[in-house]
Amino acid sequence: MDAHFSTLTRLQDALGPNGWTRDPDLIAPHLVEWRDRWSGNTPLMLMPSTTGEVEIILGICHEAGLAVTTQGGNTGLVGAQIPLGEVLISTKRINAIRAIDPVDDAIIAEAGVILSQVHDAAHQIGKRFPICLASEGSATIGGLISTNAGGVHVRRHGMMRAQVLGLEAVLPNGTRYDGLSVLRKDNTGYDLKHLFIGAEGTLGFVTAATLKLVAQSPFTTVALLALDTPEQAVRLLHRLEAQTGAVAAFEVMNRLGVELAQKNCANMAVPFGNVPKWLALVEFEGPDPDLAVRVETALMAAMEEGLVQEGVVAQNQMQAKSFWALRENMSAAQKPEGAAAKHDVSVPVSKIPAFLVQADQAARQIVPGCRIVAFGHCSDGNIHYDVIQPQGVSAQSFQGLVPALNEAIHDVVMSLNGSISAEHGIGVSRREEFLRREPASHLAMMRAIKAALDPHNIMNPRVLL
Amino acid sequence: MDAHFSTLTRLQDALGPNGWTRDPDLIAPHLVEWRDRWSGNTPLMLMPSTTGEVEIILGICHEAGLAVTTQGGNTGLVGAQIPLGEVLISTKRINAIRAIDPVDDAIIAEAGVILSQVHDAAHQIGKRFPICLASEGSATIGGLISTNAGGVHVRRHGMMRAQVLGLEAVLPNGTRYDGLSVLRKDNTGYDLKHLFIGAEGTLGFVTAATLKLVAQSPFTTVALLALDTPEQAVRLLHRLEAQTGAVAAFEVMNRLGVELAQKNCANMAVPFGNVPKWLALVEFEGPDPDLAVRVETALMAAMEEGLVQEGVVAQNQMQAKSFWALRENMSAAQKPEGAAAKHDVSVPVSKIPAFLVQADQAARQIVPGCRIVAFGHCSDGNIHYDVIQPQGVSAQSFQGLVPALNEAIHDVVMSLNGSISAEHGIGVSRREEFLRREPASHLAMMRAIKAALDPHNIMNPRVLL
Repeated sequence: MDAHFSTLTRLQDALGPNGWTRDPDLIAPHLVEWRDRWSGNTPLMLMPSTTGEVEIILGICHEAGLAVTTQGGNTGLVGAQIPLGEVLISTKRINAIRAIDPVDDAIIAEAGVILSQVHDAAHQIGKRFPICLASEGSATIGGLISTNAGGVHVRRHGMMRAQVLGLEAVLPNGTRYDGLSVLRKDNTGYDLKHLFIGAEGTLGFVTAATLKLVAQSPFTTVALLALDTPEQAVRLLHRLEAQTGAVAAFEVMNRLGVELAQKNCANMAVPFGNVPKWLALVEFEGPDPDLAVRVETALMAAMEEGLVQEGVVAQNQMQAKSFWALRENMSAAQKPEGAAAKHDVSVPVSKIPAFLVQADQAARQIVPGCRIVAFGHCSDGNIHYDVIQPQGVSAQSFQGLVPALNEAIHDVVMSLNGSISAEHGIGVSRREEFLRREPASHLAMMRAIKAALDPHNIMNPRVLL
Repeated sequence: MDAHFSTLTRLQDALGPNGWTRDPDLIAPHLVEWRDRWSGNTPLMLMPSTTGEVEIILGICHEAGLAVTTQGGNTGLVGAQIPLGEVLISTKRINAIRAIDPVDDAIIAEAGVILSQVHDAAHQIGKRFPICLASEGSATIGGLISTNAGGVHVRRHGMMRAQVLGLEAVLPNGTRYDGLSVLRKDNTGYDLKHLFIGAEGTLGFVTAATLKLVAQSPFTTVALLALDTPEQAVRLLHRLEAQTGAVAAFEVMNRLGVELAQKNCANMAVPFGNVPKWLALVEFEGPDPDLAVRVETALMAAMEEGLVQEGVVAQNQMQAKSFWALRENMSAAQKPEGAAAKHDVSVPVSKIPAFLVQADQAARQIVPGCRIVAFGHCSDGNIHYDVIQPQGVSAQSFQGLVPALNEAIHDVVMSLNGSISAEHGIGVSRREEFLRREPASHLAMMRAIKAALDPHNIMNPRVLL
């Protein structure tokens, strides 16, 4: 304890008065996550402002064997960013956009830069950064990289991993990995950046990244479609991809999800007489001025074949936004309904219909009367599968069933060769299950890498492994 | 020696009579590469036919500390696949297409499957696999993954790394990494597949992979354009990307390259009065029936602005093929001209013009009268920069200058934050230079990973590190 006390003092001295705080009021917002599911504590919050400062403080922690927890925008959903006694290192002051270049189609942003700032910077030079997600006003580049964030345009543009041309990080021993490349092709040895992407901060502290920009799409078209079954959604996805070549997002929502949005959120209009069993929200993008015409032709044909029951193509930006608002409120709309067990799973696209049938069966067997909201990124096989407590049952008695429920739903996922964490990561909340379900050979490799790069196990030691 | 002799016998016994050979005639083609730059020797060639057999033989080698060299289609350009005393393991009998699924847009191909077979299989279900390169009739999936192959469609579709959804490999200790996922989103721990991709067989033996397929592009348009300068090429690339959104390949060739193709290869027609200083070959692809019209409009505007001197849009498949034949003969056309020092480099796209000026200067200073062929993937900053011996000078005296020449050209590349191996890899031929130029921190990380996964250093031990 004394040893750690002197280490804390060394850390403070290294960063100077602007670089740390012990003030409980200043630290408090960093110890809870926005859904109030996690709360923590820390003896000290560090706020380095340069990569050099991160090198110094991790060097000190490495030497002393002192554990740290890293935090970006504090939007993570699996508890990884909340310290439980560790020193907290925030990226909030490492927040410069170092460079942006329209010829290289690249931006170099530091870890603490917020996603929406990258969107704005790209827009100003006539380009676009294609990662879009609900928390883009607070999620940071460092966090998005460390969690390999997804979002709604993965099918077309890939996850965060696919946007990273190069990165700079500080290893757990305080040395710098300097890989801020702008190159699109570089086959000189192992591609080390991939070790840091999606590693949830366990292999190093990402301080900056070179991100790929893309040309803006002059034309977009958004359609809201009424479907009867998930099978239709999967078939429609492939038809529209083949016929338009322009599918940028293909999201689905089940009837209950839409009904709860209408009930619990303001101004949620569904442009059909009845709420259909399934809604598909499809966004098309492309450089082709006839895009809207081609989309309508493809949709008409799908309708004539009975693949789509009804459909509306947004006539303007406002209507497109209202379609998206429905989708974006799928989570918030559940809150007034009580407790819910949420699952961020993926299966092969061809297995989405089977997953939904089998998961429903499993859930209703364990929690009779439960209410199921299923929605998400159909084009990536990524379903957010939320089971809400039955009406008239106490939250507490429902919570008692949640472990069995999670287990049963994840059993279905695994039997279909799926993933129990499609985009949110493992963090603290799924660690026990991850360690239990992951093949031993994968865990052995991960542990070998962790031991090689973080021998004193100081980086986010409660996370993942 | 005796110990190794008994190990060789164990390896033979493990695979049975079809699984190995010592016949010099059968082994001979595997000991030379197609340009005759490398020749090697091996006591034994193993030809396992299943992943299980690879587990057994690597297990034996691990135990005995016996080094192996792995070989796919033997099309590598950096000597990595040619054994020098090690046991040779060929993937030629691990060659099944295990599955292909149009709904999941995925194919599972074993290591020894040839690229063109994947193209054919995808075509048969109405899909496409977008990695295209000159050696596609012999290059194998295992080799393409281990070298992270590039090709002409990288700007649009990414390198081999971007096509791999999952893979199966055998680790140097003989245990299996079973990651043949079809998932498009999976954030459960470190993404281990990236360790094997581009590792040149030093971290494990890739036995099979799940590869992403894409929709076929119904419409393609190919244009051959006469330009004055590389600056124009870079500006044109961005204009055409912004205006058409359909650039699939953007290749450049300098005048000497085109002239040598005309001189040394049959039927190389250039549809312009004089061979221009630079030719750009641009391929557009998209689902838009008006693609050709939009392309022509964009090209007309570029011409009116003086960005393009002359241009021809291919009127049919045959003409498009003849444009591509020019590009594909850039290497072969140099052969009758004598010795050449070849460089596969990349720089940031914005630095292509500076690279060409500075590299020319450096080359002509060291080898007065040298002839320079520069061509390649302008859209990725990847230039194949070949310096041919001056006329009237012996190959031998030119060869004496090659080390200084390579050094000077790679110095230019490094000063522009480029890469000395954009797509061919390090292998044996660039190892010394790689170890000298790569930052110490990168090498330390690579060595830590290599030591963690291959503690007895048996996998391709002369390659890379």
